[in-house]
Amino acid sequence: MGATTLRVCIVGFWSWGSAIAKIIGTNVKNQQKFASTVKMWVSEEAVNGRKLTDIINHYHENVKYLPGHKLPENVVAVANLSEAVQDADLLVFTTPHQFIHKICNEITGRVPKKALGIIHMESIDEGPRGLMLISDIIREKIGMDVSVLMGANTAREVAAGEFCETTIGSKVIQNGILFKELLQTSNFCITVVDDADAVELCGALKHIVAMGTNFCNGLHCGNNSKAAVLRLGLVEMITFTRIFCKSQVSTTTFLESCGFANPITICYRGSDCKEAKTFPRIGKTMGNLQKEVLNGQTLQGLKTSALVYQFLKQKGLLAKFPLFVTVYRICYEGRPSTEILTCLQNHPAHM
Amino acid sequence: MGATTLRVCIVGFWSWGSAIAKIIGTNVKNQQKFASTVKMWVSEEAVNGRKLTDIINHYHENVKYLPGHKLPENVVAVANLSEAVQDADLLVFTTPHQFIHKICNEITGRVPKKALGIIHMESIDEGPRGLMLISDIIREKIGMDVSVLMGANTAREVAAGEFCETTIGSKVIQNGILFKELLQTSNFCITVVDDADAVELCGALKHIVAMGTNFCNGLHCGNNSKAAVLRLGLVEMITFTRIFCKSQVSTTTFLESCGFANPITICYRGSDCKEAKTFPRIGKTMGNLQKEVLNGQTLQGLKTSALVYQFLKQKGLLAKFPLFVTVYRICYEGRPSTEILTCLQNHPAHM
Repeated sequence: MGATTLRVCIVGFWSWGSAIAKIIGTNVKNQQKFASTVKMWVSEEAVNGRKLTDIINHYHENVKYLPGHKLPENVVAVANLSEAVQDADLLVFTTPHQFIHKICNEITGRVPKKALGIIHMESIDEGPRGLMLISDIIREKIGMDVSVLMGANTAREVAAGEFCETTIGSKVIQNGILFKELLQTSNFCITVVDDADAVELCGALKHIVAMGTNFCNGLHCGNNSKAAVLRLGLVEMITFTRIFCKSQVSTTTFLESCGFANPITICYRGSDCKEAKTFPRIGKTMGNLQKEVLNGQTLQGLKTSALVYQFLKQKGLLAKFPLFVTVYRICYEGRPSTEILTCLQNHPAHM
Repeated sequence: MGATTLRVCIVGFWSWGSAIAKIIGTNVKNQQKFASTVKMWVSEEAVNGRKLTDIINHYHENVKYLPGHKLPENVVAVANLSEAVQDADLLVFTTPHQFIHKICNEITGRVPKKALGIIHMESIDEGPRGLMLISDIIREKIGMDVSVLMGANTAREVAAGEFCETTIGSKVIQNGILFKELLQTSNFCITVVDDADAVELCGALKHIVAMGTNFCNGLHCGNNSKAAVLRLGLVEMITFTRIFCKSQVSTTTFLESCGFANPITICYRGSDCKEAKTFPRIGKTMGNLQKEVLNGQTLQGLKTSALVYQFLKQKGLLAKFPLFVTVYRICYEGRPSTEILTCLQNHPAHM
């Protein structure tokens, strides 16, 4: 390994982290720019009486989170997070967002100063001044440049090598291009743009839109109604992003994979969304539904919806976002899911 | 009926014409601006031994083309086209595109001079100078202003009163607003924009994109690949529209219902597209497939694809439209449908 090769660490071992490990492990072998060994931080746990890291390093398969997919042998599971990141030049964060504070606290001061990060996390968080981007948490805590990877690409399809597009948003465009070299394959195609915050927000906000289309599914609405939710949802995503970013984010950014293509994928993922089928019929609040139907699993749109609602309320902007507000009220205030249709009928876009 | 009321004639009696007749018939009763009787041109044919016009005027149902939906009683079927249009102030054209020349020839000179038209036709045609918009055919032949109605709204869902959005494109914005008054309901919501040609092209070009997603369906691709076809398809739709219109059409027009929402509706209309399931497996040319599987029914994307291909070839622009060109080659040159994936992998958007 030459002195100039870049060492990669994947901070995350769940399904998407394992899927991207397949790509990274293969790509680094073909490019001298990158060190041939890729570390993947794996929080230790026992699977059938054996350590998960041992299983991954012996059988090259994450049997718990991405079973059925072989990882390249140069992807090495490391149980100690500090050890995993300490000599990394490129950090790929892909973790459920609730762990990001803990992870950042643990690795602050351990990450090499010139290291660059990229995140694949479809959420937002709450900081001391309200709604906060995950990338900003990492920037603040670790002091590194952070790019964002976001697009219409689910772990299962990425792992299966099916064709996907994605977007990298980078404030320093050269860093985005470097991550593109690390990640692009003939079936994982990337466009790099400089609106990093917009790219990140798209990934979180789409989950609110998806809640809207899920309500439509549950109400057995036609495709035209769902298309209207998707369209008005995208319009509100754009408006929100411009207000949050305090800048005229280019409309073309929303035509990238992170933009309009991304909600389509989750809104049309088929009949496997339990909440879509169940919610409008049982008349429970979304919080209860989450406990009872999803076994406590978090619905991504639920937290995002609450954070966005609070932000809008604080700024006196609720009236500008009827779709976002309606989704919130159905989820948290016990309003009937049919209000999504009333919202469409009265949306100011048609006045 | 006061002297200033506007008389409406629907030129078309197929499913979409009948669906919009339900809306227009109801709307004119509530607005003094419009005459309360609406004429609908119905080409005479016998249904169960009775004239279709008689059935419609007696039972108020188009039993042949939109069975199961009552039309308002003030919608009157008229078999003679010249008679139907001769006193009309507003003409709503909704006919399969192959009839438009014949219809125009028949009514030229019969339509009142100040009459305004609007079309709902998702196709393009071939004129003496190559590719030609349907609205331009009507403008040339009849000399009237023509607006365009286009969006994510299928006849079945419009007739059922399900929520739909749509777009009116009007070169004279006041005319678009007048048609919005005629057509908008709480479940058929309209935005008016001035990029009429772009709105019209979206309706035709989406069928090429839909062919692409249909190939993906037939190949059992995942949602990510379909989302990529939709996204790259939209990018090519925008590029094509700007070249054809010779102007910088606003990107926001493509965020209207006529734009990105429209292809979604037909691309995800479910498993009822015979061609999607069949084509990639039997390896026949699309022309043969059309004959054998669709009983000779025209696939809208097929003719559009050929016209667009000829236009691009003539202008030396094939390389700028890899998706459109690939769809053409699969349809007409016997290329395997897997080439849609090769096209995605090599699309210049990711270079």
